[in-house]
Amino acid sequence: MLPVADALKLLDAHWQPKPTRELIATSEALSRISAADVLSPEAVPAFRKSAVDGYAVRAADTFGAGQALPAFLEVVGEIRMGELPPRDIGSGQALAIHTGGMLPAGADAALMIETTQLIGDGEIEAMRAVAPGENVIQAGEDVAAGATILPRHHRLRAGDIGGLLAVGVEQIEVLRAPRVGILSCGDELVPPAVSPAPGKVRDINAYTLSALAQREGAQPLRLGIARDTLADYRARAGAGFAQSDILLLSAGSSVSARDYTRDVINGLGAPGLLQHGLATKPGKPTIIAVCDNKPVIGLSGNPVSAPLVARQILPRLIARFLGQSLEPPPMIRARLVLRVASETGREDWLAVRLRAGADAYPLAEPLFGKSNLIYTLVGADALLRVPLNSGGLDAGSLVDVLPL
Amino acid sequence: MLPVADALKLLDAHWQPKPTRELIATSEALSRISAADVLSPEAVPAFRKSAVDGYAVRAADTFGAGQALPAFLEVVGEIRMGELPPRDIGSGQALAIHTGGMLPAGADAALMIETTQLIGDGEIEAMRAVAPGENVIQAGEDVAAGATILPRHHRLRAGDIGGLLAVGVEQIEVLRAPRVGILSCGDELVPPAVSPAPGKVRDINAYTLSALAQREGAQPLRLGIARDTLADYRARAGAGFAQSDILLLSAGSSVSARDYTRDVINGLGAPGLLQHGLATKPGKPTIIAVCDNKPVIGLSGNPVSAPLVARQILPRLIARFLGQSLEPPPMIRARLVLRVASETGREDWLAVRLRAGADAYPLAEPLFGKSNLIYTLVGADALLRVPLNSGGLDAGSLVDVLPL
Repeated sequence: MLPVADALKLLDAHWQPKPTRELIATSEALSRISAADVLSPEAVPAFRKSAVDGYAVRAADTFGAGQALPAFLEVVGEIRMGELPPRDIGSGQALAIHTGGMLPAGADAALMIETTQLIGDGEIEAMRAVAPGENVIQAGEDVAAGATILPRHHRLRAGDIGGLLAVGVEQIEVLRAPRVGILSCGDELVPPAVSPAPGKVRDINAYTLSALAQREGAQPLRLGIARDTLADYRARAGAGFAQSDILLLSAGSSVSARDYTRDVINGLGAPGLLQHGLATKPGKPTIIAVCDNKPVIGLSGNPVSAPLVARQILPRLIARFLGQSLEPPPMIRARLVLRVASETGREDWLAVRLRAGADAYPLAEPLFGKSNLIYTLVGADALLRVPLNSGGLDAGSLVDVLPL
Repeated sequence: MLPVADALKLLDAHWQPKPTRELIATSEALSRISAADVLSPEAVPAFRKSAVDGYAVRAADTFGAGQALPAFLEVVGEIRMGELPPRDIGSGQALAIHTGGMLPAGADAALMIETTQLIGDGEIEAMRAVAPGENVIQAGEDVAAGATILPRHHRLRAGDIGGLLAVGVEQIEVLRAPRVGILSCGDELVPPAVSPAPGKVRDINAYTLSALAQREGAQPLRLGIARDTLADYRARAGAGFAQSDILLLSAGSSVSARDYTRDVINGLGAPGLLQHGLATKPGKPTIIAVCDNKPVIGLSGNPVSAPLVARQILPRLIARFLGQSLEPPPMIRARLVLRVASETGREDWLAVRLRAGADAYPLAEPLFGKSNLIYTLVGADALLRVPLNSGGLDAGSLVDVLPL
């Protein structure tokens, strides 16, 4: 039995993802991953601009100015937003300017309007001196032409999209989302649209696992339901594997379906099975494999444990495919409301509900229930991690939970 | 100047969102919000099933059984997955069963295969007694027909989708996503596709704000760029307002555009402007309004502060539209790497980069820069909150950051 982290490292060592690229509109690139460094084709700002409302001036004209001894300046016009300055300024002159307005030739600073006084007839008093460059953003000060504005393998956020569009980068090369194939196996399974005959149940793992893949930015491929024979299971897994970048097998509950999964995986390509059995509950019978440079994960058919195990593994595989590292998933700190017992030697994951607490930490309330009741998952907010060798967690202690 | 939390409460008091509903496929409902309670049309499980691999038995036949004195049982057949039991069982009889298999009439418990021994010729020894109901999931134990399986105004997660499909709920009524209108104003602005003439800049707020709305599950409507005249600003704001559930105005940098925003907002409907000025930096000149039962937010045209302020306000408006409460946004705890000074009387928000630290907390490194450099936002991971009256935060202290 291997801890999940070690199983993922093993997988990492046998897998070199080779994602392809696609060119998309920058405005549609939220949460996508950049395929390459992006260099700025332009400088930002493209021109010297004022950072304040006030007057474009020569700093030297204000030297020594103060409340007691203001400097007098002649206002020779106004620079309108979005337009070129109507003229240059000379010594003793000023042009009214707005925040973001273009500085005229001759000016090297901007006076804040609050530090000036209009004394009528096109003249102002500067009540404060400004240094050269003060209240001015120099051309290229934000970003220089040719500078790297976005590194490769970066997940695009709102601010990144703004940064790209600010320099006219309207299209960006991103990594294609991985296709996550999901195949269920079991004679007892029917599609959700079918009313199950006695003894049969609806296949829901295909949908919970799809939703999980979709949430992580992957493209789920539901591959249907394989019959509980080695031939059908193998044929469907093979066809699905060819279309997928990552393959999840949710094996049926029968002993034979579980046994077949090993054989099916080993038939998909080398090296095949890397680990059978994880030191985690639920998830003990999980199979970790790499076939022909694609990860293949064998999950149980249990509708509760399959998504709980996938929650720990799948987001990291998707991230890895997209050039990210195999970092542990970000956890939330919460306060446990009651004691949870656990066996040493394995990591336990328990569905919890979160609610507001008295301090900064939400309260985590474990949802106990038989391990195979799907409704212990409905309404759960997160998974509580009981660490490998803790022997349990005390009521009132701060714990790590993984949001669902 | 009002703290953001108080401004939001003010807005909440003047706004009664009336979202409409739409019926969509459950399999496509990830992250959508349920419009009404969902009742289960069926019981789960629909039949009594085994929770283990082993034998369906009468518990009474095993009473008193143990390692020293096993109970003998006749195996009269096997219950195949997804099929009806081939027969009932009587006293002293057992049927082989798989996890999830349907219990036959006459049986009231399941023996785990590990507690039995096959002694050939269709006979087994039970080395342990089982109680009635042991290792059995009763019909309806997971959920009863007619029970509420999902409350209204619940954000659907992968497990919820599974829960709905498990009982054949293939379509679900969800709340329609709010339409967030975004109008920029300023003569200096050109669309990102246009190469700006000297003095002009690309309008990027429309895109950063769109991305933010999209990330929160809303539908952004980019309403274009209004000229810096009251007439054009008013006409475009009015047309955009009619199509929107929430309206964001990103006013240009000129004094006139900023002044017009108040008038434009008050012309959209009653009660109009509720608060001008927030005790937050950036965000001081923000306008909070409700016009004709729709929130209208006046943001500055500054491409850095507009999205930072929107990050604090917009997700909560979208959540509120979707029937959620106005809860403070979830923050991440991080360790600050250097001291940050601040004025009391306002909340400061600073862009930070996060990196792995020595303990459970990521390290937060403030990205200093002039407030209007867009590239201080590119590559930022989160916003550091410097609380209202803290006077600053010490290096090494644990702080709250809002992920970007």
